Amino acid sequence: MGRVGTKDLSQTLIPSDIWSSLCTKMGALRLPSLTSIFAVSSARSSLFSRRSKQLNVRKLTSAVKVFAKSTPATEVAPAESNQKLPVQEQGITPRSQDFNAWYLDVISMAELADYGPVRGTMVIRPYGYAIWEAIQDYLNIKFKETGHSNMYFPQFIPYSFIEKEASHVEGFSPELALVTVGGGKELEEKLVVRPTSETIVNHMFTQWIQSYRDLPLMINQWANVTRWEMRTKPFIRTLEFLWQEGHTAHATLEEAEREAMQMIDVYTKFSYEQAAIPVIPGRKSRVETFAGADKTYTIEAMMGDRKALQAGTSHNLGQNFSRAFGTQFADENGQRQHVWQTSWAISTRFVGGIIMTHGDDAGLMLPPRLASVQVVIVPIWKKANEKNEVLDAALSVKDVLHKAGIKVKLDDSDQRTPGWKFNFWEMKGVPLRIEIGPRDVSSRSVVISRRDIPGKPGKVFGISMDSSVLVPYIKEKLDEIQSSLLDKATAFRDSNIVDVSSYDELKEAISQGKWARGPWVGSDEDELKVKEETGATIRCFPFEQPQGPKKCLMTGSPADEVAIFAKSY
Amino acid sequence: MGRVGTKDLSQTLIPSDIWSSLCTKMGALRLPSLTSIFAVSSARSSLFSRRSKQLNVRKLTSAVKVFAKSTPATEVAPAESNQKLPVQEQGITPRSQDFNAWYLDVISMAELADYGPVRGTMVIRPYGYAIWEAIQDYLNIKFKETGHSNMYFPQFIPYSFIEKEASHVEGFSPELALVTVGGGKELEEKLVVRPTSETIVNHMFTQWIQSYRDLPLMINQWANVTRWEMRTKPFIRTLEFLWQEGHTAHATLEEAEREAMQMIDVYTKFSYEQAAIPVIPGRKSRVETFAGADKTYTIEAMMGDRKALQAGTSHNLGQNFSRAFGTQFADENGQRQHVWQTSWAISTRFVGGIIMTHGDDAGLMLPPRLASVQVVIVPIWKKANEKNEVLDAALSVKDVLHKAGIKVKLDDSDQRTPGWKFNFWEMKGVPLRIEIGPRDVSSRSVVISRRDIPGKPGKVFGISMDSSVLVPYIKEKLDEIQSSLLDKATAFRDSNIVDVSSYDELKEAISQGKWARGPWVGSDEDELKVKEETGATIRCFPFEQPQGPKKCLMTGSPADEVAIFAKSY
Repeated sequence: MGRVGTKDLSQTLIPSDIWSSLCTKMGALRLPSLTSIFAVSSARSSLFSRRSKQLNVRKLTSAVKVFAKSTPATEVAPAESNQKLPVQEQGITPRSQDFNAWYLDVISMAELADYGPVRGTMVIRPYGYAIWEAIQDYLNIKFKETGHSNMYFPQFIPYSFIEKEASHVEGFSPELALVTVGGGKELEEKLVVRPTSETIVNHMFTQWIQSYRDLPLMINQWANVTRWEMRTKPFIRTLEFLWQEGHTAHATLEEAEREAMQMIDVYTKFSYEQAAIPVIPGRKSRVETFAGADKTYTIEAMMGDRKALQAGTSHNLGQNFSRAFGTQFADENGQRQHVWQTSWAISTRFVGGIIMTHGDDAGLMLPPRLASVQVVIVPIWKKANEKNEVLDAALSVKDVLHKAGIKVKLDDSDQRTPGWKFNFWEMKGVPLRIEIGPRDVSSRSVVISRRDIPGKPGKVFGISMDSSVLVPYIKEKLDEIQSSLLDKATAFRDSNIVDVSSYDELKEAISQGKWARGPWVGSDEDELKVKEETGATIRCFPFEQPQGPKKCLMTGSPADEVAIFAKSY
Repeated sequence: MGRVGTKDLSQTLIPSDIWSSLCTKMGALRLPSLTSIFAVSSARSSLFSRRSKQLNVRKLTSAVKVFAKSTPATEVAPAESNQKLPVQEQGITPRSQDFNAWYLDVISMAELADYGPVRGTMVIRPYGYAIWEAIQDYLNIKFKETGHSNMYFPQFIPYSFIEKEASHVEGFSPELALVTVGGGKELEEKLVVRPTSETIVNHMFTQWIQSYRDLPLMINQWANVTRWEMRTKPFIRTLEFLWQEGHTAHATLEEAEREAMQMIDVYTKFSYEQAAIPVIPGRKSRVETFAGADKTYTIEAMMGDRKALQAGTSHNLGQNFSRAFGTQFADENGQRQHVWQTSWAISTRFVGGIIMTHGDDAGLMLPPRLASVQVVIVPIWKKANEKNEVLDAALSVKDVLHKAGIKVKLDDSDQRTPGWKFNFWEMKGVPLRIEIGPRDVSSRSVVISRRDIPGKPGKVFGISMDSSVLVPYIKEKLDEIQSSLLDKATAFRDSNIVDVSSYDELKEAISQGKWARGPWVGSDEDELKVKEETGATIRCFPFEQPQGPKKCLMTGSPADEVAIFAKSY
């Protein structure tokens, strides 16, 4: 449109001391902190050193572009210009160029998260945490509607608990953080910082469950968990993360199975309806089943680089933990039985999934239902005498939308040009932008731009400021964007899943970066061979299965089900 | 009333295997778990062994009374009788008899919390967690209204961080839990499990704050924290607890001071208006100031045993942490300055404060605004043919109240007599009970009982079921109870604060279990002497001060302020 421009700050003089502090700052924002105190695995270390080499030069340049925010106005003269910088020059590596660099850039520039001082930890900043809060708000209601109560278990678990369930200890022991000193004294038994709570939950369940009348027992907790991961990535895999973990106990296997399925269904609906992510729900293979579960159900999401993300899981634990901990009840005939259990979780990893599903070269793109800012208002004025009337109109539009329950932000700072603000809020993924200039004030109308449709096609002029017009218009557009994001992600997903009937076809699909879907009755060894040779794993046996007779792509034997293979995070 | 009775289960035959499992269960519910793995300090150990001796005998008896819940109906015949058991025989030690035993009984019997397997840890059960959720719901809105954003910092803090602020390390180092092993390897630098987050917050603030334009920076997190306490008590002092911690950075001392005061004011209003606890807000003495703060503001609550509970604090941290961590900003003249900071917190300890402020011999008493169940409906029928019409009416009353936004529960189980349910929900502290029997159905009216006014005086007959009558009546009663709890607690508080003008008078007041309020300009040594000789500490210099000239109760020197002395939790 060229209505307004972005100032090119690289043309501005910057005092050298501020420059150097800025360079330090930019480094600190994206590189592992100097205070990071652990040896890093070779995989990770190479990942980061590569990043740091690539980024330092670029960042020193791009730092200038984002500089004004932290510089006193007296030192950087506010300049107006009609030059519009390509977004990538503001610091974000284009997604199409380097997906991983783009992802880390978005997290940093959109202020979603930062590295913590301890290797592999993450500070979730307000704009990122707001996404997690929106996830919590939705799921918390669904959990309660389906009969679960929130509670809280201690995070310190006696080491001996972890050892009680054989496959559980095998799965988790390499990842444990251990507290060995408390109150200045060496502890007699070391404590595990919870990696998950099945063990302590069962320890408590034995005290609360006596009779079938105490069942089902259905609880959930929102908590932090710790897993000593070697290869970490913000949101996707961090040493400590936030999640909810549901835990239930039932009188019968059938009930537990129904519960496990119900909760994967809650996650699936959440993904489609709130996050606009067309996950594929299904069952994990034996190899990929949770350590301690009989069956694991999963929702698998395709990221923008076509790698799979396990975005949530629900486990039918059978009687594995109840037998290990003696969690029993007296049935209607007075017989002692072990309870049947489930557990299910979604974590802050899901935030990473949202970024990697919808984002584009310009940055983040948030689904309206999870966006903490759904509409940003950018007022535009050139002359001082225009400022008041424009700001008044912007404030009254803000007020109208706020009262209608729309999450709206007015960016009325005079430190930034409108053009800079356009780029900034696009990069932050805000679904709709409202522009109000002097001419709009005269005509009592606004200009509205969609984040998901760049440029002119996504821009509409002359929408009345009148609330009876504006409010329904905005609500409709938010709904349209919500659907459109889901449609786009679904089309992308479907065009990147290949139906295969032989191992060669599978290898071909995987080598093209796609997902392969084909009949499978292979052994665990066959599955591990595929992983070794292609890097792909069975993501799931999807619930939705094609009809008709099938032959295993690997063994040629008759197969009941197709599996989906993909490389994954 | 004798309308209905409680069945006396001690008259019922109980199979011996269930009896013995029951006895085990009751022990497990209230005694430190057998899996508790730490040496216990002598103070604590004697506390618990005393409790276990006292309780085991009584519990074996009382266990019979609460038995039916976990026993198949086929084994315990449902009997109706008009005998009503005194509440204390159901297992709660009367508050008037032993405050501490009463407190632990309430927590156990009302299913608020349980001991965790690790010494000093606590499992917060759904009914207790719901109180914490109500606290969160209110405060979260107030924090956002006052300009704070939620975020999340990692809980693992490099040990070196804690050492940076001199008085901070002195205050916290004896209480630290340390992670020394991660992923199977000894760590090079041990990690502190956060006892509070000022250090890591400052580490991150240095990266986010460059200019005065980045200020104020105002954030909050809801998190778990760990302090290796030796003497623990559920909710009041546990090894791990839940809290919110606000952290802010400002350009000036004055702004930081305003913020610290604003937040203690938010806490004070919350206490009065939501929790019905008439806290006394004020300033801590130097001796009692937070390790690392210039000033600590506090809200002090008087518990039912007249001991003080520090229920929330807000700290003006000055530049102590910003100097230790180098948290600086460029002011409007381009000069580097250290930021001025605050931090403030309320924790799950507050739940303990609610229990100990309002509870009575019959158990818990919840202020309506924090109660997860505000109204319980108990349907009453004798003959099978009455059951359907009574349940239909109860359901429709439930529906009417639910739609009006009242938190209502219908206890329609047929395993329990109405009398048992009356006692149970009284013990659980539900503010209002609605009884509906066959005669009420005929007259389309209900009977309503107030938890805070026992017996006949709190019972009203013949309130119409019509929603236009019932809903406003219930809302009015809930408001009345809310005010009444505050009034009662205020009267109790005021009648137990003694104005003193000499040390002798102070000692006399403290020895009577009261709070002493008197002019004070004593030294730190004088203050410690009072503590040693009387067990009382300065709880605060209250914001509300008497007018006129005063002389220090200890030194006789002119004093500007009165201080409040009390024994405390």
